[in-house]
Amino acid sequence: MADGAETIRVPFVDLKGRVATALRNAGASEDSLRAATRAMMHASLVGVDSHGVRLTEHYSRVLNSGRVNPNPSIRIEQRGAGSAMINADNGLGHLAGYRAIETGIEIAREAGVAAVGVTASSHLGAAGAYAMAGADDGFITFATTNTDALVSLFDGAAPFHGTNPLALAAPVPNQRPWLLDMATSSIPWNRVLLYRSLGGRPLPDGVAADSSGAVVTDPNLVKMLLPLGGTDYGYKGAGLAGVATLLSAVLTGSTIDPEMISMSRGPDWSTPRNLGHFFIVIDPGRFAGREVYDALIVRYLDAIRNAPQAEGGTVMAPGDREWAVADERERMGIPIDPDTARFLGF
Amino acid sequence: MADGAETIRVPFVDLKGRVATALRNAGASEDSLRAATRAMMHASLVGVDSHGVRLTEHYSRVLNSGRVNPNPSIRIEQRGAGSAMINADNGLGHLAGYRAIETGIEIAREAGVAAVGVTASSHLGAAGAYAMAGADDGFITFATTNTDALVSLFDGAAPFHGTNPLALAAPVPNQRPWLLDMATSSIPWNRVLLYRSLGGRPLPDGVAADSSGAVVTDPNLVKMLLPLGGTDYGYKGAGLAGVATLLSAVLTGSTIDPEMISMSRGPDWSTPRNLGHFFIVIDPGRFAGREVYDALIVRYLDAIRNAPQAEGGTVMAPGDREWAVADERERMGIPIDPDTARFLGF
Repeated sequence: MADGAETIRVPFVDLKGRVATALRNAGASEDSLRAATRAMMHASLVGVDSHGVRLTEHYSRVLNSGRVNPNPSIRIEQRGAGSAMINADNGLGHLAGYRAIETGIEIAREAGVAAVGVTASSHLGAAGAYAMAGADDGFITFATTNTDALVSLFDGAAPFHGTNPLALAAPVPNQRPWLLDMATSSIPWNRVLLYRSLGGRPLPDGVAADSSGAVVTDPNLVKMLLPLGGTDYGYKGAGLAGVATLLSAVLTGSTIDPEMISMSRGPDWSTPRNLGHFFIVIDPGRFAGREVYDALIVRYLDAIRNAPQAEGGTVMAPGDREWAVADERERMGIPIDPDTARFLGF
Repeated sequence: MADGAETIRVPFVDLKGRVATALRNAGASEDSLRAATRAMMHASLVGVDSHGVRLTEHYSRVLNSGRVNPNPSIRIEQRGAGSAMINADNGLGHLAGYRAIETGIEIAREAGVAAVGVTASSHLGAAGAYAMAGADDGFITFATTNTDALVSLFDGAAPFHGTNPLALAAPVPNQRPWLLDMATSSIPWNRVLLYRSLGGRPLPDGVAADSSGAVVTDPNLVKMLLPLGGTDYGYKGAGLAGVATLLSAVLTGSTIDPEMISMSRGPDWSTPRNLGHFFIVIDPGRFAGREVYDALIVRYLDAIRNAPQAEGGTVMAPGDREWAVADERERMGIPIDPDTARFLGF
């Protein structure tokens, strides 16, 4: 991993093949494993290792343990000229996610916009993978999901929301998309685990709390993350996490975060978790028109990339860091941690 | 104002009447002044004083100076079963904003969702006012706008984005809506001005910077705000500000933040600023169905309000603080600062 030690580098194609094989061995249908592999490879390529191929072992486990349906029958119902609802039949969230984007694009081509909800699903992986899928086809695409409780409310003393991501991607002519894929906590839970394994290396201030909700920096005392904005402005991060929950769970009839079975802490590995996701797909040609949009997004990105920089800082447009990592990893191979290397047989 | 001194309290109805009269005296059409008054009264009622009736004087000035068209012909064009585009004819942004919500609701009743862009507009006021208008009619409603440059990019050394708000409101049966209305900077620019006027009271760390982009707490040195997330996680706040700009300006063909004429610093008071706004209206009945939505949003709000609280903290759902302020102000009158009191003739 980017932060870790003892990694090996594996070429993209080899890694992709091993991931697909592992999921096939766990019983996943060809549709399901293609979708999950695609989403994990996106995350591993752009450097979001927490949602990359290291999850292959987790997905294999839940495919075998009954939590996730290896061969789901996805049901898609259009609910209006601009809206659709998908029942994921408790399959891998990636399959439902990509189906939602395909459905959204079909609808947005006609209506100009599409809103697609998903219920009876499981872990979505990196929300940015689905935003990217829409942007790669020329559509501004928003993706979100709720997840199990790891983040306190503002002034709260218990995990409540998931790290609920918000992702938006927008197409740029002759360039890779503008891409924002952010958790609504400041840091991911993995960071806590990593800092514990580094002998209790202190976390930054204002990102995590102990069991009473008091801010702590010792990773061994951490029982929950704080929402983005920390002790002063965390009501904003908590509100954004709520946007994910409202759209993904409340609107779709899925399980709200504080009632959701833990993704990876057990003890229940056999009950479906009933996650929800939500997607919005927008045709950039329907407002000022495609030519105006194309010219303006390039102008906007140029303005960002040419903006004055603070001493020692580097201004980047959303996505630029990811594309730089992707270029490097395409050349040098994708780093994988020892546990994942072992699981995939490298 | 909530933070200030020497305020007086005025009953809602009296204040609303004076605001409307002032705008009428500045030449605003009846439609325009009704919309602007409604939006300012929303903000003043719920405690967002920066966007409340204190702006009456500003709007009167720009109605007189040629920047804002006092009697615009709003043009609405549907661009697909779910999308529409509005040209605000350089009128008050509030009129275009409420028209966009009305249009969005009409479209969403049929299509399940609506995306409405606005161009050739001016200052929108509190984005939450429009999200509320949709929620009051039973629709989940998202509202955003871009504004002139006040906030640096992450690692930037110049103002780039506006304080670009993101607002979402969701209807709740027999309760006031879930409401998030947040700037994508940590603090508003007014906070800097207020702390200057309080003799240089230090700002919190990580919310503002000097002309080199270095973080400062002395309000007299502040030349720009930092995005939400501060020095460590400000790429998230900057990305969220970018969402506002992408949807409000790039998609609608309006002026991007760093090229926009300053709202209140002059010297140009006569050229229209060509702001853009963007709205999404969602019918909560089209996904899991209205009954499931109604039950789940109540269950979700109950879970928030009953969540364990940190020592000395109070957990609130998004909007609860605003409704508490509104209740108090309905009883006690709305506080207005001395300059505004003078302008409105109190």
